[in-house]
Amino acid sequence: MAITFSERTKTLKASEIREILKLTQNPNLISFAGGLPAPELFPTKELIDVSAQVLEENGGQALQYSTTEGYGPLRQKIAQRMNKKFGTSVHDNDILITNGSQQVLDFVGKILLDDGDIFLCESPTYLAAIAAFRIYGPKPVGVPTDGEGMIIEELERLLHLNPSAKFIYVIPDFQNPTGRTWSVERRHQLVELANKFEIPIIEDNPYGELRFDGPILPAIKSFDTKGLVVFTGTFSKTFCPGMRLGWVAANEPFFSKFLLVKQAADLHTSSISQLEVSKYMDKYDFEAHIREIIRVYKSRRDAMVSAMEEYFPEGVTFTYPQGGLFTWVELPPHIKAVKLFELCLKSNVAFVPGDSFFPDKKVENTMRLNYSCMSEEQIREGIKRIGTAIKNYKA
Amino acid sequence: MAITFSERTKTLKASEIREILKLTQNPNLISFAGGLPAPELFPTKELIDVSAQVLEENGGQALQYSTTEGYGPLRQKIAQRMNKKFGTSVHDNDILITNGSQQVLDFVGKILLDDGDIFLCESPTYLAAIAAFRIYGPKPVGVPTDGEGMIIEELERLLHLNPSAKFIYVIPDFQNPTGRTWSVERRHQLVELANKFEIPIIEDNPYGELRFDGPILPAIKSFDTKGLVVFTGTFSKTFCPGMRLGWVAANEPFFSKFLLVKQAADLHTSSISQLEVSKYMDKYDFEAHIREIIRVYKSRRDAMVSAMEEYFPEGVTFTYPQGGLFTWVELPPHIKAVKLFELCLKSNVAFVPGDSFFPDKKVENTMRLNYSCMSEEQIREGIKRIGTAIKNYKA
Repeated sequence: MAITFSERTKTLKASEIREILKLTQNPNLISFAGGLPAPELFPTKELIDVSAQVLEENGGQALQYSTTEGYGPLRQKIAQRMNKKFGTSVHDNDILITNGSQQVLDFVGKILLDDGDIFLCESPTYLAAIAAFRIYGPKPVGVPTDGEGMIIEELERLLHLNPSAKFIYVIPDFQNPTGRTWSVERRHQLVELANKFEIPIIEDNPYGELRFDGPILPAIKSFDTKGLVVFTGTFSKTFCPGMRLGWVAANEPFFSKFLLVKQAADLHTSSISQLEVSKYMDKYDFEAHIREIIRVYKSRRDAMVSAMEEYFPEGVTFTYPQGGLFTWVELPPHIKAVKLFELCLKSNVAFVPGDSFFPDKKVENTMRLNYSCMSEEQIREGIKRIGTAIKNYKA
Repeated sequence: MAITFSERTKTLKASEIREILKLTQNPNLISFAGGLPAPELFPTKELIDVSAQVLEENGGQALQYSTTEGYGPLRQKIAQRMNKKFGTSVHDNDILITNGSQQVLDFVGKILLDDGDIFLCESPTYLAAIAAFRIYGPKPVGVPTDGEGMIIEELERLLHLNPSAKFIYVIPDFQNPTGRTWSVERRHQLVELANKFEIPIIEDNPYGELRFDGPILPAIKSFDTKGLVVFTGTFSKTFCPGMRLGWVAANEPFFSKFLLVKQAADLHTSSISQLEVSKYMDKYDFEAHIREIIRVYKSRRDAMVSAMEEYFPEGVTFTYPQGGLFTWVELPPHIKAVKLFELCLKSNVAFVPGDSFFPDKKVENTMRLNYSCMSEEQIREGIKRIGTAIKNYKA
């Protein structure tokens, strides 16, 4: 005998972003590399208050084992907020509380993917979703996108080519990494196509509430007529990520599968965190808090975009995100983002090279910039330094 | 096309205990069915204090994303406590913080089990471990046990019969469900055998610190010479379960596998909960708190054992647990515990029939009794009622 790990461990590899982030621990560094919310906006004072109140009034429940589904009043609030904000019509009973939405992605892989299965996703797409799915041995197929979302004709062609594809994974609002948002028409078309092919859609929506201008767009889930759309959301960007609170909204036959894997995976999500967030929403104005996050991030987006316009040389293009945390830069074809990253580190500024966001092809001249957790001054200075590095790279 | 779930979902089924616990929601019920810690012992007041302090001093870190491994000072404290209490020699870097030890069990299945693989376990064993492993498609093989642990000759025979078995899963202290504890000699013999066969041991130790009399026995991990023992512990029974804080202590090549699956599964465990428990240990006397839990549970164990001696008819045997939360009852062969359960529910007392704790055989005349969360009066009254039901069953 000898230790023999499971076949699926052979697909495990350390996150490339994680390796990059290790290089960005220098406190003097201006980092656009992570995806951290601004910590100065965390509702720290309010949490001290609700934590004490929850423990005083209800410590026995807050600290005890609880149901796998999650805390009833929180499930109710989530359903109500989703329906109000995203035009969905989900019920409390469709909501399962999870350890952040990352756990939902793991569960999606667990309940849907066998070794060798195909799933479709945007290209580029969220790196950690690919990492979560990868452990179940699938093959991702990237669908070409434009400024409005997946190109529907391309998606239809790929669905015909891959008739046993397991699901379509999308981030329709302020996508990580590109910052792009799907048009309403494309959302509608996506559901029509999914209905025709009877293929589940996984709608990952961590940033949707952080829209800087205009009304929030209806979720893809709001167009769902056959219960094929599995929606996942999180409190990480609107409240705080440290608590690890997210959820999945799903109909049968998905919900009961999620519930059973959640039970086997870790019994339930933190009781006290669920009670605290629920109490916070009872006592404080969560929407006002979100408006404040929007105000700050919008200014930072503006600072970044105007700095890029000023300091980036011709031939560099970037997205203009309508919300969320990221913008996406395309460099001239001769520039390798990984090499540019090394140059930038020397002048104390960091970003994430876009290479690893592409599920199934090699693209070397892109980068993701995060603007949520640096000050406007740092943003201007950092973009200036990257601009200089791009120019020097050219030279 | 149509929705096609993964092969592994076919093994999913609702926990039988969960179904039973649904029947035990009546507040007038005397329930020995769950495995709940006594909520009146939760350190509620202390948590109000440390929660406020952590948020005031360190809110930005407590509410932000953090490292997958866990909070450094907590990892250090866990390693030190393990080494002091259980005679191990683990390092901070061997500790990965998880959402309770249930998550470790899921990860064990994930990194070690392929469809059809065999693992060995005690018979009976912890139901939710079987549930966690089951999703990866293995076949459990129960090893006969006596009052000192697995019978080593039987284990050796089964290892020869199953040369590609993936691991041996054991709960050496105050086992769930039997309350039994392995002798030191057996622990030693187990490691020798595992070394010989080069097979990993998964040592699940949720109750080990709750020993009522005499010194805590050395962990199986303390005899580990080849890094084959993966130890999992939890704060659920010594602090509170609602926070979902547990850990795995493992050497390479296990640790890095656990780390990668943790990252893909949910990025990291709650930052704020980790900081709070660490701060609690800095400010308060955790050992005194555990001594108080021991004092209360020991009285309840005594109350249950003496009530069983008084009220259970001849032909019924039970274990005398030296710690932990459970005792295990063997009924005369003609009594089916499931049917007895139904009878008992009518007189407002509940337990868990032992059937589902057996991994690979049918045993119908056992039950698990939990004594940690009922008062001594309730324990006497409940056992009296069960005794009456047993006598009536006979009649």
